[in-house]
Amino acid sequence: MITDAQIERWLREDVGHHDVTNQVPGETTGELVAKEAGTVAGLEAAAAVFAFIGATVTDRLEAGTRVDTGDELLAVEGEARDVLRGERVAVNLAGHASGIATRTNRAVAEARTESDDVRIAATRKTTPGLRGLEKRAVVAGGGDTHRLDLSHMVMVKDNHIAEMGLEGAVEHFRERASFATKLDVEVETVEDVPRAAEAGADIVLLDNMSPAETREAVSLLAEYEGVLAEASGGITLETVADYAAVGVDVISMGSLTHSAPSLDLSFRTASD
Amino acid sequence: MITDAQIERWLREDVGHHDVTNQVPGETTGELVAKEAGTVAGLEAAAAVFAFIGATVTDRLEAGTRVDTGDELLAVEGEARDVLRGERVAVNLAGHASGIATRTNRAVAEARTESDDVRIAATRKTTPGLRGLEKRAVVAGGGDTHRLDLSHMVMVKDNHIAEMGLEGAVEHFRERASFATKLDVEVETVEDVPRAAEAGADIVLLDNMSPAETREAVSLLAEYEGVLAEASGGITLETVADYAAVGVDVISMGSLTHSAPSLDLSFRTASD
Amino acid sequence: MITDAQIERWLREDVGHHDVTNQVPGETTGELVAKEAGTVAGLEAAAAVFAFIGATVTDRLEAGTRVDTGDELLAVEGEARDVLRGERVAVNLAGHASGIATRTNRAVAEARTESDDVRIAATRKTTPGLRGLEKRAVVAGGGDTHRLDLSHMVMVKDNHIAEMGLEGAVEHFRERASFATKLDVEVETVEDVPRAAEAGADIVLLDNMSPAETREAVSLLAEYEGVLAEASGGITLETVADYAAVGVDVISMGSLTHSAPSLDLSFRTASD
Amino acid sequence: MITDAQIERWLREDVGHHDVTNQVPGETTGELVAKEAGTVAGLEAAAAVFAFIGATVTDRLEAGTRVDTGDELLAVEGEARDVLRGERVAVNLAGHASGIATRTNRAVAEARTESDDVRIAATRKTTPGLRGLEKRAVVAGGGDTHRLDLSHMVMVKDNHIAEMGLEGAVEHFRERASFATKLDVEVETVEDVPRAAEAGADIVLLDNMSPAETREAVSLLAEYEGVLAEASGGITLETVADYAAVGVDVISMGSLTHSAPSLDLSFRTASD
Amino acid sequence: MITDAQIERWLREDVGHHDVTNQVPGETTGELVAKEAGTVAGLEAAAAVFAFIGATVTDRLEAGTRVDTGDELLAVEGEARDVLRGERVAVNLAGHASGIATRTNRAVAEARTESDDVRIAATRKTTPGLRGLEKRAVVAGGGDTHRLDLSHMVMVKDNHIAEMGLEGAVEHFRERASFATKLDVEVETVEDVPRAAEAGADIVLLDNMSPAETREAVSLLAEYEGVLAEASGGITLETVADYAAVGVDVISMGSLTHSAPSLDLSFRTASD
Amino acid sequence: MITDAQIERWLREDVGHHDVTNQVPGETTGELVAKEAGTVAGLEAAAAVFAFIGATVTDRLEAGTRVDTGDELLAVEGEARDVLRGERVAVNLAGHASGIATRTNRAVAEARTESDDVRIAATRKTTPGLRGLEKRAVVAGGGDTHRLDLSHMVMVKDNHIAEMGLEGAVEHFRERASFATKLDVEVETVEDVPRAAEAGADIVLLDNMSPAETREAVSLLAEYEGVLAEASGGITLETVADYAAVGVDVISMGSLTHSAPSLDLSFRTASD
Repeated sequence: MITDAQIERWLREDVGHHDVTNQVPGETTGELVAKEAGTVAGLEAAAAVFAFIGATVTDRLEAGTRVDTGDELLAVEGEARDVLRGERVAVNLAGHASGIATRTNRAVAEARTESDDVRIAATRKTTPGLRGLEKRAVVAGGGDTHRLDLSHMVMVKDNHIAEMGLEGAVEHFRERASFATKLDVEVETVEDVPRAAEAGADIVLLDNMSPAETREAVSLLAEYEGVLAEASGGITLETVADYAAVGVDVISMGSLTHSAPSLDLSFRTASD
Repeated sequence: MITDAQIERWLREDVGHHDVTNQVPGETTGELVAKEAGTVAGLEAAAAVFAFIGATVTDRLEAGTRVDTGDELLAVEGEARDVLRGERVAVNLAGHASGIATRTNRAVAEARTESDDVRIAATRKTTPGLRGLEKRAVVAGGGDTHRLDLSHMVMVKDNHIAEMGLEGAVEHFRERASFATKLDVEVETVEDVPRAAEAGADIVLLDNMSPAETREAVSLLAEYEGVLAEASGGITLETVADYAAVGVDVISMGSLTHSAPSLDLSFRTASD
Repeated sequence: MITDAQIERWLREDVGHHDVTNQVPGETTGELVAKEAGTVAGLEAAAAVFAFIGATVTDRLEAGTRVDTGDELLAVEGEARDVLRGERVAVNLAGHASGIATRTNRAVAEARTESDDVRIAATRKTTPGLRGLEKRAVVAGGGDTHRLDLSHMVMVKDNHIAEMGLEGAVEHFRERASFATKLDVEVETVEDVPRAAEAGADIVLLDNMSPAETREAVSLLAEYEGVLAEASGGITLETVADYAAVGVDVISMGSLTHSAPSLDLSFRTASD
Repeated sequence: MITDAQIERWLREDVGHHDVTNQVPGETTGELVAKEAGTVAGLEAAAAVFAFIGATVTDRLEAGTRVDTGDELLAVEGEARDVLRGERVAVNLAGHASGIATRTNRAVAEARTESDDVRIAATRKTTPGLRGLEKRAVVAGGGDTHRLDLSHMVMVKDNHIAEMGLEGAVEHFRERASFATKLDVEVETVEDVPRAAEAGADIVLLDNMSPAETREAVSLLAEYEGVLAEASGGITLETVADYAAVGVDVISMGSLTHSAPSLDLSFRTASD
Repeated sequence: MITDAQIERWLREDVGHHDVTNQVPGETTGELVAKEAGTVAGLEAAAAVFAFIGATVTDRLEAGTRVDTGDELLAVEGEARDVLRGERVAVNLAGHASGIATRTNRAVAEARTESDDVRIAATRKTTPGLRGLEKRAVVAGGGDTHRLDLSHMVMVKDNHIAEMGLEGAVEHFRERASFATKLDVEVETVEDVPRAAEAGADIVLLDNMSPAETREAVSLLAEYEGVLAEASGGITLETVADYAAVGVDVISMGSLTHSAPSLDLSFRTASD
Repeated sequence: MITDAQIERWLREDVGHHDVTNQVPGETTGELVAKEAGTVAGLEAAAAVFAFIGATVTDRLEAGTRVDTGDELLAVEGEARDVLRGERVAVNLAGHASGIATRTNRAVAEARTESDDVRIAATRKTTPGLRGLEKRAVVAGGGDTHRLDLSHMVMVKDNHIAEMGLEGAVEHFRERASFATKLDVEVETVEDVPRAAEAGADIVLLDNMSPAETREAVSLLAEYEGVLAEASGGITLETVADYAAVGVDVISMGSLTHSAPSLDLSFRTASD
């Protein structure tokens, strides 16, 4: 959810105490246009910004739509001062989210050259304040949100295992986690893969393994029905297909959210 | 300013209602380490996150410091549960801001090959909610904030000029703006450059001009003492030196903030 | 997480614009004491209230501790005006949360007479603004949080099934939910139980069934390894053992959070 | 006042970052129905939740209306996704507030068997964040809010009296309180009752006295025109009539707000 | 209560996104000094601002202290950047509140020339966002807060009386108001004074009457023990003594809060 | 921008938890009327308050309009309870802002007797929480906002100069400030005036100088084209013309915002 409280903070941040340039009389229409090809997201948030300040959104593409240069993403009409006041925040949101959707879509396309069903997932490496927007942008690009916050899924990490041992850590959290919550257990070596599955992992995260090691891990996991294999750690657009090829169920990539360049968008108004 | 209210929202966003994995006993130390070379920023914000949850920041690099792989950016100590709880938000902030500082620094270095004093400036194309953090990251990278919000400087844009004429628009805003506020006038053609200066612009923004046109505009502005020339519109790391070479005072680049990949950072803890 | 922003709102709500009675000089100590037996929770929140206003919490029981009449739950010291100002909010939080923990503990005890491992779970029927506090109080009482928010676990409800059919609805959400998210499918009749499991439910919620029907459903689910059986709908402290006896994995009860009477606590101060 | 800021926090708390189940197309109607008899309250808040998310409340009972099983409390129509998104928070508010109104109404009915005009009052033992909602629910049930916050009325408590003496404490606060503010003086013994009245109490709170002692105190207060007698301390639905019978003006009961079970309500939707 | 959330908003409002002038190294001390005589208030708020940013308040006068030119009101020490950052907000608060205390004190002094016990009271005509600060400043000046908010005391106004008649309106609100709440009934003519008292007013507000009419009203009220007489409407520093002379209990003046000039204060720092 | 979040805080501050007097049935109209002559401001904020609670503003004067006693500033219609609930906050805002506009207008008129173009400017001595409202009220009165926050313009103050020397301080900040930001350098003596201009000041602030000294400073600055002269420090309505007469460009007066009495406004409703 993008809330009004967020939109107020964003507008206030951009406007300041006394802006003389937006005091423009009359009505106008505006449209958000793609200046490069990509996959759109964040248009719901952009529309919410315009609605918040009293303009009317007359058209808007669905999240996940592929666009080419020149395509219109969103159309708005209203008093010129309102449309102009919301423009920058709306474009910043839509460009940022669409950049994430576009990069995700590219990663998915790469992966699809080798696998029909591997999931390309984001991580918790999101921009503070925009977790929901960015996770939904990943979904718009065909990706998977992965865990939304620390309470959504338990991830058993190296420091837990260092302290309690692999089996001890899994049992420790199995007891403390709700039946509604899955356990994802991070392992560093192929030998630990069956131990994690045996201990009760729902997902085994294969951390920083090569595609070859990952393949071996996947084959070991084949014996544990319902346990998923996740590859993670430094996987890029260039290497994602290699991991897809070895049969993992999930590939997670922090760069989907933290390093996607903004999609180039332009906002055009027409006074009347 | 990063405020406690922001930090609370960011932590709440990441933690959710019931996180069982951070219930780790004992004390720990942690350090934020570079996994690639770059320029750091956002460490004040990262430190504020740790301070907010009660951990002690024992060391921290100054914004703008250049680091290499393996360098320590920030050290923290405290109860393990606090350190672990703040880690992800702190790293996300520092990685994001340092990515911006690093890209800015690269753009400045490119420009310095041709000019000793051109300023490389950001725009208002920042991530909603993080305007201050990102602008300060640009400064850390050697760049210029440009205007911080709509109230900071008046920019006379094409839609103002379309409605009131160039001279009319400048006069309109000169009357309404405080003596404390500068006027930056956007022009699309070389012919409009002297008109803007004549009308009273403090800065003339040369929008989407080629380096050759920009050079011509700069030479026309030489007659107007104190009036600055700003190049803007689609300038990249590859072309920034070309604009620096033709003598502009300021080059503004939206990509510094909206498309900088995160700097790769790692947070290591050691339980004791 | 109880945040400072929440505590500020709660204190402001209780204090108003000008309270003359808390202007008491000197230092004092205070202790929170049980006036009836029960299971404590919410003491972390109560302690945070005192810490927020500058008093020092010198002792505090762990969430989940069983207490008898007269037992001390929390001790605080500081300026009398601070201790008095925080008292009411702190007691209201601790009494409310401990009431939930106590009722949960009673439900668990009832269920344990028939089953060693059935989980007693809360629902989303919590007090607006206190979701986290109440879910953690359920855990303190030996219960299970169930889903923390709508994004935590997908529940396929009767209105989804009415629209898309049981198999259609499960498939619809299976495609849209992250691999990190479980699916809980609500069924009204015993016949639908194997259909839900077959379609891919992680949990089958047996809605408003009698213990006898529930037993039948559980036996049908025995064939689907890893699929959990959850009983729900009007289950009380009086009937919970009957459901535990028929072998379900989870029993969820809204009354744990929405109808638990407060645990009777008293706050005693001693001026010095 | 229920504010939009509160509603946003409550919805965000319940929805999380990415809820796939509310993405339901089409319009729907919904109605809130009683599953047991009681007195309704909180429907203004429930309606505000639906209005906040864009649904239209077409009908709603007045606070204080008595309902039977099957009665409709509130009707709403709008886009299915909006109605579904607001449902849980709306029901939680209405159920909680109606539970308080119902319990208050029961206490008033008990008291009415012995007295036509005794007031049944709540205390400051309310749920943090919901003071106003709960106090208004008490009014809906026929009760009296008592003091709304610490600034509303001065209560001279045992710790004040221990420090300054009864007469000293009353004088101390009489000087510091506004003419707009009443003084309620707490006494532990019958002997102190005339002292409190003499000193200038507007109300004398008879703390933890038996009905017999309370009767004696009331008769002593008869000489002080305009001074009210309030009974307080552990009074239950079972004993409230005994206190009403001895002629007190006010009976205050913390359990009205902190221990009232939720009224059982159900929300039914009909897709179209 | 001045809360941290308010202080954050105030500091953010004053600082903006990137302030280069407060980046001053080293420690400093600072002191707030009177540049004219008056009565101080708001120093608790000013101190809270400095505490919020990490500086230490080493000395501070009590609210209500009378100062002369050159007197020190508050002393602070800490890092120069912190002290400088908080200075403007702290001085603005203290100057504003002290201006109100000073004007109140002057009104009280005028009234004391004619009456020993008349109360000089503020109204709800306060600056939005600063109700508590301003009401407490009135108290610091020797005045009375009057009602703190609409829920504190019922005021029966002309529009209520127009609709329900005087007796009808008083009875209407007597039934709806808590026993903890007083009733203040506004009358426009002397004839209505006994009607208001008879109907059950705790206070009769004599609206826009001359001192002579007010005297007559006061004498009529003498027969109603415990009912207070309040004069209100356009009373100034010049006329307040005339109203005090005729024996009213309370004189309320909106100008105490909405038109008090700021007390002239200066903040001096000394770097070391 | 006045945001909904502010309006909510202001209304909640004024209403409290349970106000019985605003429960008035039916529709009403209301109008805000001047009870004395002046210049209006803050009507946008007052209108936003009414809009927030659902009433319709049917008419409203432009900021800066001069009114006489009896003139209508704003008209509203809606449910009586809404209009009454918003009234006090709306009047407080409009009266406060109009008081500032009126006093600014008076200062401008005084200055105009001696100079056609001197700017009368406010300072940062504004009421915490109302910076924007007050700065815009100054503009409505014909004044200049001066710097809006610390990030808007760099002011080089005495403590900076004490530490780094005049030239050093100006250079220090010239390097750190954006090209978009002006520098205002404060000097205490006439001798320092040319040094400040030489060093690169955009504006020289002549602090606490007599009109004669100010005249001398202005004549020295005549040689530095484009550098503005600002008079500041203890300038009143009585002395502002003397400063205007000596040719300064800007006169700044803290009293415009911190000591302007409220404009006397009345709100009249008519039930129907």
